[in-house]
This record gives sequence, C-alpha cells and structure tokens, in this order.
Amino acid sequence: MLSKNLTAFGYEYIEDQSGGLPVIRSMSEIAGSTVMLIAGEYLSNADNGRGIILGGITGVPPTKVVMLGAGTVTEYAIRMALGMGADVKVFDKHLYKLQRLKYAVGQHVYTSIIDTDTMAEAIQRADVVIGAMRAEDGLSPVVVTEEMISRMKPDSVIIDVSIDQGGNFETSRMTTHKQPTYKHMGVIHYCVPNIAARVAYTASMALSNIFLPFLLETGTTGGIEQMMYANRWFMKGVYTHKGTLTNAYIARKFNLRFKDLDLLLAARF
Amino acid sequence: MLSKNLTAFGYEYIEDQSGGLPVIRSMSEIAGSTVMLIAGEYLSNADNGRGIILGGITGVPPTKVVMLGAGTVTEYAIRMALGMGADVKVFDKHLYKLQRLKYAVGQHVYTSIIDTDTMAEAIQRADVVIGAMRAEDGLSPVVVTEEMISRMKPDSVIIDVSIDQGGNFETSRMTTHKQPTYKHMGVIHYCVPNIAARVAYTASMALSNIFLPFLLETGTTGGIEQMMYANRWFMKGVYTHKGTLTNAYIARKFNLRFKDLDLLLAARF
Amino acid sequence: MLSKNLTAFGYEYIEDQSGGLPVIRSMSEIAGSTVMLIAGEYLSNADNGRGIILGGITGVPPTKVVMLGAGTVTEYAIRMALGMGADVKVFDKHLYKLQRLKYAVGQHVYTSIIDTDTMAEAIQRADVVIGAMRAEDGLSPVVVTEEMISRMKPDSVIIDVSIDQGGNFETSRMTTHKQPTYKHMGVIHYCVPNIAARVAYTASMALSNIFLPFLLETGTTGGIEQMMYANRWFMKGVYTHKGTLTNAYIARKFNLRFKDLDLLLAARF
Amino acid sequence: MLSKNLTAFGYEYIEDQSGGLPVIRSMSEIAGSTVMLIAGEYLSNADNGRGIILGGITGVPPTKVVMLGAGTVTEYAIRMALGMGADVKVFDKHLYKLQRLKYAVGQHVYTSIIDTDTMAEAIQRADVVIGAMRAEDGLSPVVVTEEMISRMKPDSVIIDVSIDQGGNFETSRMTTHKQPTYKHMGVIHYCVPNIAARVAYTASMALSNIFLPFLLETGTTGGIEQMMYANRWFMKGVYTHKGTLTNAYIARKFNLRFKDLDLLLAARF
Amino acid sequence: MLSKNLTAFGYEYIEDQSGGLPVIRSMSEIAGSTVMLIAGEYLSNADNGRGIILGGITGVPPTKVVMLGAGTVTEYAIRMALGMGADVKVFDKHLYKLQRLKYAVGQHVYTSIIDTDTMAEAIQRADVVIGAMRAEDGLSPVVVTEEMISRMKPDSVIIDVSIDQGGNFETSRMTTHKQPTYKHMGVIHYCVPNIAARVAYTASMALSNIFLPFLLETGTTGGIEQMMYANRWFMKGVYTHKGTLTNAYIARKFNLRFKDLDLLLAARF
Amino acid sequence: MLSKNLTAFGYEYIEDQSGGLPVIRSMSEIAGSTVMLIAGEYLSNADNGRGIILGGITGVPPTKVVMLGAGTVTEYAIRMALGMGADVKVFDKHLYKLQRLKYAVGQHVYTSIIDTDTMAEAIQRADVVIGAMRAEDGLSPVVVTEEMISRMKPDSVIIDVSIDQGGNFETSRMTTHKQPTYKHMGVIHYCVPNIAARVAYTASMALSNIFLPFLLETGTTGGIEQMMYANRWFMKGVYTHKGTLTNAYIARKFNLRFKDLDLLLAARF
Repeated sequence: MLSKNLTAFGYEYIEDQSGGLPVIRSMSEIAGSTVMLIAGEYLSNADNGRGIILGGITGVPPTKVVMLGAGTVTEYAIRMALGMGADVKVFDKHLYKLQRLKYAVGQHVYTSIIDTDTMAEAIQRADVVIGAMRAEDGLSPVVVTEEMISRMKPDSVIIDVSIDQGGNFETSRMTTHKQPTYKHMGVIHYCVPNIAARVAYTASMALSNIFLPFLLETGTTGGIEQMMYANRWFMKGVYTHKGTLTNAYIARKFNLRFKDLDLLLAARF
Repeated sequence: MLSKNLTAFGYEYIEDQSGGLPVIRSMSEIAGSTVMLIAGEYLSNADNGRGIILGGITGVPPTKVVMLGAGTVTEYAIRMALGMGADVKVFDKHLYKLQRLKYAVGQHVYTSIIDTDTMAEAIQRADVVIGAMRAEDGLSPVVVTEEMISRMKPDSVIIDVSIDQGGNFETSRMTTHKQPTYKHMGVIHYCVPNIAARVAYTASMALSNIFLPFLLETGTTGGIEQMMYANRWFMKGVYTHKGTLTNAYIARKFNLRFKDLDLLLAARF
Repeated sequence: MLSKNLTAFGYEYIEDQSGGLPVIRSMSEIAGSTVMLIAGEYLSNADNGRGIILGGITGVPPTKVVMLGAGTVTEYAIRMALGMGADVKVFDKHLYKLQRLKYAVGQHVYTSIIDTDTMAEAIQRADVVIGAMRAEDGLSPVVVTEEMISRMKPDSVIIDVSIDQGGNFETSRMTTHKQPTYKHMGVIHYCVPNIAARVAYTASMALSNIFLPFLLETGTTGGIEQMMYANRWFMKGVYTHKGTLTNAYIARKFNLRFKDLDLLLAARF
Repeated sequence: MLSKNLTAFGYEYIEDQSGGLPVIRSMSEIAGSTVMLIAGEYLSNADNGRGIILGGITGVPPTKVVMLGAGTVTEYAIRMALGMGADVKVFDKHLYKLQRLKYAVGQHVYTSIIDTDTMAEAIQRADVVIGAMRAEDGLSPVVVTEEMISRMKPDSVIIDVSIDQGGNFETSRMTTHKQPTYKHMGVIHYCVPNIAARVAYTASMALSNIFLPFLLETGTTGGIEQMMYANRWFMKGVYTHKGTLTNAYIARKFNLRFKDLDLLLAARF
Repeated sequence: MLSKNLTAFGYEYIEDQSGGLPVIRSMSEIAGSTVMLIAGEYLSNADNGRGIILGGITGVPPTKVVMLGAGTVTEYAIRMALGMGADVKVFDKHLYKLQRLKYAVGQHVYTSIIDTDTMAEAIQRADVVIGAMRAEDGLSPVVVTEEMISRMKPDSVIIDVSIDQGGNFETSRMTTHKQPTYKHMGVIHYCVPNIAARVAYTASMALSNIFLPFLLETGTTGGIEQMMYANRWFMKGVYTHKGTLTNAYIARKFNLRFKDLDLLLAARF
Repeated sequence: MLSKNLTAFGYEYIEDQSGGLPVIRSMSEIAGSTVMLIAGEYLSNADNGRGIILGGITGVPPTKVVMLGAGTVTEYAIRMALGMGADVKVFDKHLYKLQRLKYAVGQHVYTSIIDTDTMAEAIQRADVVIGAMRAEDGLSPVVVTEEMISRMKPDSVIIDVSIDQGGNFETSRMTTHKQPTYKHMGVIHYCVPNIAARVAYTASMALSNIFLPFLLETGTTGGIEQMMYANRWFMKGVYTHKGTLTNAYIARKFNLRFKDLDLLLAARF
C-alpha cells in the first residue's frame, strides 16, 4: 500500500524532494510555525535571555536569524520572521531548494549556497540559528562546527530541528520538553526532537487529516501501521504528551474503529 | 520644552491621535511585536495550554485572534499574526483608527466597530483576545464583560496590554513578570503592565533613540524629566527589571552625563 | 494525437492533477474570475438580494465566503475575494491541493480538510458558498447536504460551478443563462453549467489560444475533434451563445480553414 | 455641534482633502467596492454586453480600466481591479492625491495628471471608464467630452459615480436603480446617483457606525440632522430603498430612541 | 502667493517635513528611481567596476546597500532595491521618518537611528552607499567621515544625492554629468547635483504637471518665479541640459504664453 | 554522467521546460536582473537616449516595457520592472509558461499569447522591448519583424537576450561589450550575447555554486566538461572577460585541482 500512497501524493513527492510524505510535510509546517516562537522566548528576559525582541521595531537594528536548510520548516519560519521584521539569511546545499523557497515565500530573500566563509560569518553575527537540514541518507549533515559556535554572541539561541536525525550542529545533543535547553560555550541550545508536541492538539488534527482518507478508503490498518512506523519519532512525541485528548479526537472521527486504532498505537510505541 | 517637543514631533501627533509621543509609539511597537509570542507560549503545551498552534497550517482551521483597539500595538501584532496565518478580527470604537490600520498593514483585514453583538460572538469563538484600547481620559475602557469571558473556551488566552490604565477586561487584574498569569473562569489571563520589559535591552535602545536627541540638543534634563513623568508606568518596568544593563547602555551614549541621568531615574521611581 | 498533447503539456498535467488539459485550466480561470461577480450581483439589492456588499468596508464585518475545492476556479476567485476584503474559507479533500493553493495565492489563507463539523458550521455562517470540487471519477462529489443548506441564512447565495458534473450540493439542479437561479429553502442557487459563456468573447479568445498551435502544427483537425469531444459541455455553451462572433474570431486567425472549422463545430453540437 | 465633529475627526479631514466627513468616506468605500461589480455585469453577456471578462486570464490581454479621480472610490475600486488582473490607469488633477493613492494601495500603479492627450487616448482604448472626481466647489468637473466618448469602442462601459454632483462626463445624465443604464454613441452609461443603495443593508450598518457614537455621546439629535442634511442625496437613496429593514437595524441599536429617529428621517426626505 | 501654495498643498507639507514643496517631491521621486540604476552601472564591469550584480540571484549573497535618510529618494530607491533582491539598511536621525518609510514601502525594512557604531559597520560592509539626507537648515549633514570611507571595500560605490546642499560624505565634491565620478581611497564617488537631468524629458513632464495648474489658475507668473527661485539648482540642471525639448513641451501646454515663460527662465539662470 | 545530472536536478527539469539545467537557470537570473539596468541606461540622457525614466513616478505615465518569452529572464526582469513602476506586457507562445510566470511573480501581470496583432501594437507603443524567447530546436524564434520595428518610436530600446541563439528580432545582429549597441531604423539595439559578463564576479560565484558539488562528489572532471560544452557560448563570455579573477575564485574553492580546471577551460574555448 505504500507504493499506492506514493502514487496518490505524486505532487507532494515532486515538490518535496527531501521527503515528500505528507506526514513529514505537515509536521514540518508545524515545526516551522513553532520554532520562531521558541526563539522569541529564549531571546527574551522571560527565560533569562538577552532581552532582545525577535523581529524589528523602528530605529533599532532587527534581530539576525540564520536558517540552515530551505525546506518546509524554513518556509514557514521565514514567513513569520519576515512578518516580524527580522533580518533573515537562508543557507542550503542545493540551489534548486533555494530557488523553490523564493517561489514559496513570494518575495526576494537572502539565499546562499553553504560556503564555509559566508556561513561562518553569518553565524558569528546571528542572534538565532535554526538547523533544519534534513538527512539525505538517514543522518542529517553537521554543517556548523563547534569552532563556529565558539564565536557566537553569549546567550544567542540555537534551535536544532534536525536533532532527531543527529542534528546540524556539532554541539547539539537531544533534550526533552521538560528540560528543553542547555548552554554550551555560552550559546543556548534547544534540541527537542519532537517540536510538534508543543502543539499536540494541532498536530493530531494534522495527522488525522492525513490518515483519515487512508482508513476510510482502504478499510485496513496495515497501511497506517507502515506509515506510522516510518515516522516513529514524531508519533511518539505527539501521542504520549497529551495522549488522551489526541486519541479521543481521532477516535471521534474514526468512530467505531476506536479500539483498533488505540491498540495499534499502544503496540507500536 | 514640552511644547517644543510637540512641534518637533508634529507628524507623530497627527498619526497617533491616542497618544503620539514617540515613547508611547516605540513601546507600543515592542508590545505589539511581543504579544503574539506570549499568546503562542500560553496556547502551547509548554505552559500547560491547549496545545494549539498560533497561526495556521495547511488543512487545519487557523487560530482565531481578536484584537481590541486599532493602534500601534495592534498594527505590529497583526502583521505578525497574518504572517503566521492566524484568523484575525480587529475591533475599535473609532472608524478612522480602523481605516488607518488598513493603510498601515497594506491589505484588507477584518475590521468592525465595537458593537456588542458582533464582538461578543467573536470573543466567544476566539482562541486569543488582545486588549489594546488606550485611555482617552486616563482610564482605558472596559469593553469585555465577565459574562462574555464566561462563554470563552477553556484555556483560551487573554492578554491585557492596557492593564496599566485599568485594562479592557472586567476580569483582568495586574500581574507581574514573575507570576504573569492567572486563570479566571477557565481563561488564562496575562496582565503584566510593562510587557516591553520582556525585551529590556531592545526597549532601552528604543528609548535611547528617543532621548538622545533631546539631551544633545537641549543640554538640559528638565524636558526629559517631564517626559518620563508622563510615562511613569513604563519606565519603571524597563529600568528596574534589568537596570544595570539598561542604564549602562544609555550611559555609554550620554557619556559624561551618566551620573545625572542615573540620579534622575533613581529619584523618579 | 491526444497522447502527443499530453506530452506537450506535461507541466500542466503535473500542476493540475484534477484535470490538467489546458482547456479545463483556461475555462476554470474564467469561471473563477466570474463567479465572484455573480455572487456580488445576487447579494446586492439589484436582484432583490440581501443588500450586502461582497467584500469588506472599514468597520463593517466582511462578507463570509466558503469555497469548496482548491483548484483553479478557487485560485482565481480567492484572489478577487481577498482583493475585495471578503472573509474566505477554503475546503478540500486533499491536503496537497490546499498546500498548492497557498503557493498560488502567495499568502496565508484559511484552509481546511473537509471535515463535516467544521465545514457545516462554516456553511451555516456563510453569505456565499462556491462549489468547485471537480469529479475524480466523472461525477463531482456531493459534499453539502440539504440539511446543511436548511440552516443557511435566507437569501444567502450558492453557486455550483461543478453542476455540469452533477454538482457539489444535494439541492442543486442545472439552470440556464436565461433563468440562472432558483430558491430552495430560502437560499439562492445559481447552477448554470457553462459560466464562461457569460464572457463569450473572452472565452473564445482563450480557446483560440489553445487550439491555434495544434491546428498550425498538425495541419489536421482530428486532434481538435477529440479535444472538443472531451470538453463537450463547455464548448456547447460558449459556441452557441454568441456563435457568430466567436466563430468569426477564430476563423480570422485560422484564415483559409474557416469552413472546415465551422463544419466541424456544426457537426459536433 | 458640527464644529465639534470636525475636531473629533481631524485625522479624516487631513487624509481626505476632498471631503473628509466620515459619511462621505464610508459611502465612497462602498461605491468603490461596488463599481467594479457593476462594470463586470455590463461587460458580460448577461446584460447583452461585449462578453468580455472584467480582469485578466492567462494569455488574453486584460480588460482596460480608466479611473478618473484618485480618492476613496478609486482606492477601493483599484484594489479589486488589481486583484482581478485588470489593466488600470488613474487620472487626477492633483499630484498629491495620486501620491496618496499609491500609498493606500501599497504598490506602484499607473498614475497620470489629467492631460488632454494622454487621457483622451486612454479613454479611447478603455473597456471601462469610472468617473469619480468630486466637486471642489459644489459641481464635479466635466473632464470627458462627448467627442472623446464618440471614439470609444461600442458597448464599452461608463460609470459616473459623481453624477450626484453633475458628473464627470459630458454625456452623462442621472438614471435610477430601476433603469440604471442608457446607451449614448454606442457606449453604455451607468449613472445612478446613490450606488450604495445597491447594498442597502451594508450601507445602513456603515451609517450606524458613524451616527451611533454621536447619539450616545450627545444625547441630542440636532447634530445628526445637520450631518444628514449635508448628505441628502445619499441618505435618500439608502433609506427609501429598503426603508423598513434599515431603520429597524438602527432602531435596535438606539433602542428607546426609535421614534425620534424615525420622525426625523421621515421629516427630512 | 507662496502662502497660497502652502495652503493648497497642505497634505504635502505634512507628509514631507524635510521639504514638502511638490517640486522637491517629484524630483526626489526621479532621483530615487534613477539612483539604483546608476549604482548598478558602476558596480558592473561596464564601467570597470567590481563586476557584481545589483540585487540578488539565488544562492549568491545579495548586494549590500546602505541608504542615509528616509525621505522620498530612499522610498523610491528602496522599492526598486527590494524588487531586485538587494540587502538594504536605512539610517536616519529621526524616528518618525523611519516609521513613515515603513508605511510607504508597505513591509518591514531594516531601519536604524544614526548611531555611529552601527552605521560605521554597515558602511564598511556595504557595496553601495546612498546619501540622501536633506538639510534642515540649508546645509545637508555630513554623517559619513573620511575615516569610515577608508574602511570600505575597493570599488564600492557612493552616490551623494545631497551634494547640491553640501553632501552627506566628508569626501564628496560636486561632479558633472560629463565627468560624473572620481575615486577617493579606492571608492567610486558619484556626486552629480542634478541627477534628474539624466532623464530630462521625464523631469520636464513632472515639472509641467506642477506648474501648469498655477499658471492656469493665477494667470500670473510671480508665484512661479518664487517657486523656481527656491529650487534653483534643480531647474538649472534640467533646463540647460535638454533645454529646447523641455521648454517646447511646457510651451505646447501653455500655448500662447511661450515667450513669457522662456524669458523668465532665461532671466533666472 | 549527464544522465546522473538530470536525475539529481529533476526538480529543475520539471520547472524549467525550456532548459532546466541549472547553469542556464542561474545565468538567466543574472541576465534578467541586469537587462533592466541596461534598458534604463540607454533610455537616459547618459548615453544620448530619450531622457526618460525606466519606471514610473507619480503623475507621469510610466515607461512601457514589452517582454517576449516567459522564462527565467523575464521572471527576474519583471520583478524589477514592477518594483520600479513600469507598465509591463509579457508575450509567449506557450500558455503554461505564462501561467507559471504569474505564480513566480505572485501577482497578476499582463500576459498574452503571441498573436501578431496584439503584439505588433504593443511593440509599436513600447519604450523597451526585451527578447527572451529561447530556442526549442537550437535556433531561437524570430517573432519581431523589421516592419514592426520600423513603426517603433525613435530611440526606443531593444535588448535581444536570445542573440546567442540567433535572436528574436529580424533586425538584431550580435554586438560586443566594447561596442554594445547600434541603431537600426532609429531604434537602439543591444545585442551582446553574454550579458552575464557585465557582472563577471557574480556570475563566477553562481557557476561555482553549481560546479562545486559535482567536482566534490564525483572526483572527476569529465562531467564538468560535458556540462560546459553544452553551455559553450556562456562560458566563453564569462571566462574570457575577467578571466583571472574568475578562475582564481573557482580555483580557491577547488584548491588542489586548480591546474586541471585551468587546462580544461583553456582547451575548451
């Protein structure tokens, strides 16, 4: 059934070379929408940050944000960052992804191929660095070295969205929603693997949007099982955090199938 | 000297009928830029919120935001909210403020005169309500009754930016950055009077942008004193929260005048 | 020759999964551009409507428009609706179509997967509902039940662009340009199958844009015949309404081939 | 009380030199939003028009629209026209109004000082011409001569929004909602003085937005009387067309004052 | 008559504090539209420049542009620079001008109060620096020191639009259209006082737009004389460069008054 | 290895039917960004042009630009032209390319299928005509006849970006960067084949972005050779104009491989 899925979502596949399964796409939309809020929180005084605003107000140089990777996470994060007036630079290894991002955002943005010199300088000057380069072969590329991070300003913020695949920073190690950050060389690291779990209800609605058609159309659960297996890390985060609510929501949609689904989820994770 | 000030910033005065002094304008830009981040935090699971995203992702109905007042706070907050894909409704008592807001944002937005029926229904359906109606006579208008709030969804979020002038909600009472929220009728209330203090460093730069020309041009401190007096509530918050840094920054700019300024601030608050 | 066509317009095919033949695409652009004008007419007093504006003016809550389907019709209609300040919600069965629509429009829009509860409520509150979900298997899906329509406001307007394939509303039945509407349960239904015929001259130019290259390149008329056969419903409407002008226009382009073309058209319809 | 009014709406006065009273502004927003719908209707085949689309579809040269006057009517009409893809040219006598329009619309638009040659050519090539130049001295300027109109394409559409002040076209004479158009030299003329009456319900809400504060704050009706007197032509149209509904709506807001208001209105018109 | 002028263009006066006479405004629009083309020319190889593009292409870090002053010149230049994808920073002494610029452009831009540290660093990193700060007291402020320029990259480009009032750069001295640039410390300086003369035909149309109403309405030339006197530098440039054409154009408009105007201009300059 | 290339850049292939190899795409971005600067230069008095501005200022009808072809060159050129306020019309033979352009630009633009009448008239009225239709079979189509050009205004500007493939104008013949233009029938013709060489440094960075990954990943130079061969005309222009710098830049990136690369390039051209 997986091959059937690929056919049905052929458009997605073409658009999103780095993934393309709708689950990845939706969760990336969520992560992208959430990541700037997290950055804003850790830049503010509320969490003992530097006390600077995420974005720009008239007459004060805006916050500098570097985004690594030009996929869906960056697409959503950049829209928000631009709406707030931040000064954003995007780096990626692939030219076609940078070109695609400009279409998606609908305006010119600062884009650069990952080139050690330019990127290193941008990171040194940045207030926030978002790591969102996905793996092409199972392990996400480490593009920021410890040496680069050592030159960042104290209390700058790093958010490693790719941490579930190993991360984009040499200095990042997985954290949890309970203890989401640590400091390394004075730089705040936020490396929670399942960011979408911060908004578990929204995430479960997004998932249900994707799963519902399959269940309704196939009448089987085998396909779901396979799909969920492929997205284990994410599922876990969302479903365990606010489990009851989430399951209840999906269950109401699936109606009679509640038990089967519940059992399936229980068995998997 | 106050009259001199009024002349110099005549443009501001015309644009910002509800205030117009540049201090108010800059602090409102900051509050507007910050308020959506706060909303996002309390909607998320991170603070035991509803677990919904602030904004919109494809296929999931977007978050509903109601903004009361069409001044600078709303102008900045709405730009960010639209950049995130939220569903925003703005209410104000004055038609010309709503018209001005549409110019500022550069696109159509949902605007409505405050009309008990329409507003009450919008609040009932909202996920976030921002109170940003300023006083015309010293006391900000209470436009949302306890009865309206009682019909809101559990764990919805209210942020009362006008709390320093009494607030726009019947149920709001001042809180602090240490204990910023409380629940009333199941609705989260965030009523910290000096939101700008969350980003104290940015706020102090903004202030220095405004004060520097006066000090340099007049060579006196009398004018500043008057201006600060008029904005007591705000000053207090910013300067006491991260006092050393803030003062140091301004002091570096004012150079030899550090002591005078420090004394002035100390005496005032 | 049809397979040749598919190759030549491969880009279209990929972009427009639900159709992709350029004829469908162009006629959908026309229908999308026209449908909001029709809605505006029937909302106004001119046709004894509710006397409300299509769009928004400052201080008056904007008109609520629901669009079913996220294809080309909706893409063109939504651009116009947003330009007028209407409050638009788009529903579709497929996530990738909703994602694509956001790219096409270049800004965030309210999108939702068709979910009975959310959609039913949106329809109940709507002033205008546009049905533009195309068939996947020859018959367009009926997504709005009579029960949902019974809860709509009196004199609300339904326009069923998919009526040629059966329609998206349980209550819609085909009408004509002479008698374009009827009322059912107090709701105005506009169900003319070939909306493009309202602007016959534009439609014939659009068609000539598509057919001209084929005729010139192939030197045969067989291909045209096949293509027209595939789009019978539309052809009929456009060519019979203002027949002389239309044919004359195309004929001038095709020059010597006028008679052949005329005969072909005459024979077909 | 009128002078009080002028003070209160000082912002409006500055923004809208050609009028500035909020009633004019709101009714102009409505007229501007409505005028393109009317143009679309008379260009289509529905009213035996030329059968062309108002706007643009891919590959077919877009409809040409000329707007005379750069005030609020044009601001709203142009936003809609651009959203539909029409090719718009704006002419005005005053440079500052053209400059202001570009700010309001937020993008470059074709603007030209009224210069007989350029304007005459634009009108000759136009599909739609909107007259929206307001009087500076009680009588709106006639800027389009009969000779210019004689060179327009057959079945082109003229809409004279300034007809209540005499009109902008030498050939325009007042019409009614019952018989809204006539042909002169082959050009369709739409010259209904109170366009807002096409959307009487919306218009009455807009008026109530403006009047409500005065009534509530002054407790007198004298001011209203004066304001209404100044806008006689408009009031008449709106209030007589769907009188019962309109008055009822306002009456509900004013509650106990229903009778006074009703009598006032009855007496006036 | 000058006071009459000020009254008539009251809106202009308020909007454009640094000048406000329409002549300044129109010529600034032209200078702003032209200045980026000049920058592009001197950055290219065509004039032995650095061979870099003005703007941005995918994957290559965009050109860095610093604009001093937030008036009309910058408003037009920035729109073009953003359309080309350049990385723009705007500095001004006045907060209200920076705020106004953001409204005019309709999106967030990098704005900063002139603060020696931030500006000096921006200039050091810039590829292009535009000086467009107008005099408040007859002499435009020198905000860029020779020391700052000494740290700029070789073959970077400076364009001093304020050179007619003394210039914004310590190193700028007036040049001519024949010999428009010189190098100082390796930096290309373009300091032609009347940039608008590069597009003399457009400039003369703009002037005629402004003068025509005065001549027609007053029937005197006294007012014009005064106005021209106030803008001597500009007049000279435009009228002497392509004199015949310019005068002829205006003369055709003024018809019988050709001689008077010609004599007036001849006498003045 | 060419087939490998096609796989790796599959996205490009689909998006850019008329080419799709990333080299073409990047060089077209550069040409598109540069072409409007060239047009502006030759319209100005600086090169004895007509003395008109490229774009629009308030109150003066904007410059008319016609673009032939709806590929990447036009996409970049139109964004800049719209940012300057020019009046742009785009013509192409293929509907799908015109549709794609509208997505890329994110707003409505004037598009038309190449239709002798409409295009001929647009060219006659144009100030600037850009030829950017690429070959489908090795030779770019000649769509503008000498007869059409004979009716253009004196000193109008033609830029033939497709000259390397034979050109889009019957009257165009190849020129050089040293002597870039000639006049034919009073119309300025700019027909330099390798426009990107005007910004050689930027072009070489763009190329290095594309080649670097191949060299690093394959460790061979065979693939590069093939790719360069396919883009001979372009390579030549860029590499010979500022050869030393360009090669040095790439060499620094490729480090030890400098000699091989240099030899390869030397041998090829």
